[in-house]
Amino acid sequence: MNKENFRHTVLFWLKEPENQTYRSAFEASLKRFIESSKYVQNKHIGVPAKTNRAVIDATYTYCLSVSFLSKEDQDKYQDEPAHLKFIEESSKLWRKVVVYDSDLI
Amino acid sequence: MNKENFRHTVLFWLKEPENQTYRSAFEASLKRFIESSKYVQNKHIGVPAKTNRAVIDATYTYCLSVSFLSKEDQDKYQDEPAHLKFIEESSKLWRKVVVYDSDLI
Repeated sequence: MNKENFRHTVLFWLKEPENQTYRSAFEASLKRFIESSKYVQNKHIGVPAKTNRAVIDATYTYCLSVSFLSKEDQDKYQDEPAHLKFIEESSKLWRKVVVYDSDLI
Repeated sequence: MNKENFRHTVLFWLKEPENQTYRSAFEASLKRFIESSKYVQNKHIGVPAKTNRAVIDATYTYCLSVSFLSKEDQDKYQDEPAHLKFIEESSKLWRKVVVYDSDLI
């Protein structure tokens, strides 16, 4: 089995996290993109869990965590038409994005 | 197949990220813990990738990203003896930890 050598974690803070219309639009747009990606391996789209310790940041609105076989696959994912479409549809809905890209050791 | 309903992402900033002795000790300690966990499903231990965009935070030293079948499994993982041993061995090496816990939607 090929190894998932790259993990891409994205935290989104929406401008209006309580707005259900915007939430539904964001979720649909992100899922369409991730389901259609040719490069994504393990995938997770989620919301803050009900855990509570001092080190936990639960202020974000959505978490996307996806793995790739290689950095090269992640680079191609960045350029997929479905990715550009997601950004076009949804970037107006968020106020902040933080990304952690990690290479397997 | 059971679903990975919970994603636990931890960013560690070591006090001395350039110290190879401390890095090796931290990596060995974290790997021992994660390999022995009864609850971890998909797992990733990594370092900042060579990607570079404005939204990417590459200041951390290590990234741990693991999935669980449920929040309950994650709660049990928090209490595993191997987890407590990892914290005992390694907490002196880090200056900051940030956790993102995410429930699948």
